Amino acid sequence: MKKDLKHRIIEMTKEDLEKIEMALLNHLNPNLELVREIASHLLFSGGKRLRPLLMIHSARLCNYTGGFEIEFSTIFEYLHAATLLHDDVVDKADTRRGKKAAHIHWSAPKVVLTGDFLLALSLDIAARTRQPEIISVIAGITRDMSQGEINQLEKKGKLDLTEGEYLDIIEKKTAVLIQGACQSGAILAEASMEKQDALKQYGFHTGMAFQMADDLLDYTSTKEALGKTPGADIREGKLTLPLIHSLDNASPKDRTWMESIIADNEVSPEPFELFKEKLVKYGGIEYTRKYAQDHVEKAIQCLDRFEEGPSKELLCMIAGYSIERKV
Amino acid sequence: MKKDLKHRIIEMTKEDLEKIEMALLNHLNPNLELVREIASHLLFSGGKRLRPLLMIHSARLCNYTGGFEIEFSTIFEYLHAATLLHDDVVDKADTRRGKKAAHIHWSAPKVVLTGDFLLALSLDIAARTRQPEIISVIAGITRDMSQGEINQLEKKGKLDLTEGEYLDIIEKKTAVLIQGACQSGAILAEASMEKQDALKQYGFHTGMAFQMADDLLDYTSTKEALGKTPGADIREGKLTLPLIHSLDNASPKDRTWMESIIADNEVSPEPFELFKEKLVKYGGIEYTRKYAQDHVEKAIQCLDRFEEGPSKELLCMIAGYSIERKV
Repeated sequence: MKKDLKHRIIEMTKEDLEKIEMALLNHLNPNLELVREIASHLLFSGGKRLRPLLMIHSARLCNYTGGFEIEFSTIFEYLHAATLLHDDVVDKADTRRGKKAAHIHWSAPKVVLTGDFLLALSLDIAARTRQPEIISVIAGITRDMSQGEINQLEKKGKLDLTEGEYLDIIEKKTAVLIQGACQSGAILAEASMEKQDALKQYGFHTGMAFQMADDLLDYTSTKEALGKTPGADIREGKLTLPLIHSLDNASPKDRTWMESIIADNEVSPEPFELFKEKLVKYGGIEYTRKYAQDHVEKAIQCLDRFEEGPSKELLCMIAGYSIERKV
Repeated sequence: MKKDLKHRIIEMTKEDLEKIEMALLNHLNPNLELVREIASHLLFSGGKRLRPLLMIHSARLCNYTGGFEIEFSTIFEYLHAATLLHDDVVDKADTRRGKKAAHIHWSAPKVVLTGDFLLALSLDIAARTRQPEIISVIAGITRDMSQGEINQLEKKGKLDLTEGEYLDIIEKKTAVLIQGACQSGAILAEASMEKQDALKQYGFHTGMAFQMADDLLDYTSTKEALGKTPGADIREGKLTLPLIHSLDNASPKDRTWMESIIADNEVSPEPFELFKEKLVKYGGIEYTRKYAQDHVEKAIQCLDRFEEGPSKELLCMIAGYSIERKV
């Protein structure tokens, strides 16, 4: 079933995906070779292109027929890539999508500047929409994402991070971009405010579910599936929902033990297995799974007002996929 | 005389400058405290606000009466600050405007993210102009600047950097932003294409002169005036016009000696004085001064088509100031 959903999405979007790849390549071509090389390392390393797909099908769901949805959808992949490059430098991450992170190959300064370049490229394409609302959405995304990352950085290792603080961080670091992609599709189609809002909400819930699933996978997945060693979050001192909920419910003894593991920057496999058992025991895994599932249901409800058709079907599938995926 | 020009500019723009400060503060207020703190460290450390002034008076020269020129001029100060934050991280600079660079006070990642935030803020204000051309200009600036910085980084220590390569680098790292500020003022005023082009050209020449003067000051100024130790460029292996021209004309023996100084990351005061003498001897200082002066004259010629008045007078003075300043 899980494999099916992924394959069905890929099947339904085969043609779109090919055109997205072409468009992503085309915009990079006229630039400085080094910039292209660094940008390509990340951009063409097996990204799922979910953000472009969400924009394209949000536009189509609102009956957009202008013919530029593929072109403009690249805005969100470039923006996503820009933030990943900066985040990897900020987090000093070694790997990304099973490959060495860009700043391991090139120097951190070059990677930061390539991130700036991709942000500018994204903005340049956005300006071509001639829709100031789309520009405002993108400005808001960039602002929220940088604040979210700084906030997360500031709160690294903070053992009493609350659920509310966590929700604020993941909204800013993940949901706003997915939300913005969906909203921009609706704006491009000049949809009614009701439809714009509905797709914005859909994107918000899908994005929240997506990040919660990501935070779960860091505990429940394997190195082979993830392309990086699970447990990165506690190694970096990032408290996510499975852990926050479990700490709240743990016995004082277990809580103290878990805190000692978080304080330790290197977590060897054996204690990590035991740590995961605590997350199951104190309900953090199940709580997060249900929370993400709730968001998926809300996302799908947001699509009620739209006519049936392939784009609606696809958006429903992507919402579902956000929590059923293994990577 | 030199002091006069600076004081006359300040006198003529006193009211504008106060309003610019207020606007810069206002936009920062609603944000995360840490972001505000890092951004303020650089933003309110004695910047000359040349870019906002250039936009404001370009708009007024084109008879803009919409009343938003101060508000929108902050776009270019935030954008400038964003690039300074990233550049200081990239160059590992210790000081900026006589103060410790931001990444010495906070961590480099936080400074990078604050740069992203300021870029987003700039973009957000740009979107409020509702003029897609202004957004395109800003996207182009950001793209050029990041490519220019990467290019400069890639060419650090390259002893055979040509004059053409140098001109390309300074156009991208400095001139495009000043050019964009002037051009955007004209676009805001909905000026004719001829006037937009004239102000764009004015900005280009002023920007080129400004950077050449900056590159001269790194050799000819004092620590007290600059707020940092002169000679930063050769310490960082950055070849600028005074040096490129002198290397081209130096005797083989002097050239070899100069190259050995460039290769050395620490240049003590005595050899630095001798080094400067070579730049005078081989004409690099004079050549650069004339080159900058040419740009100033061309900048002022671009204003010919405009009516006389305080904004034209001010723009002429700023072009002149770009090479007469001591800081």
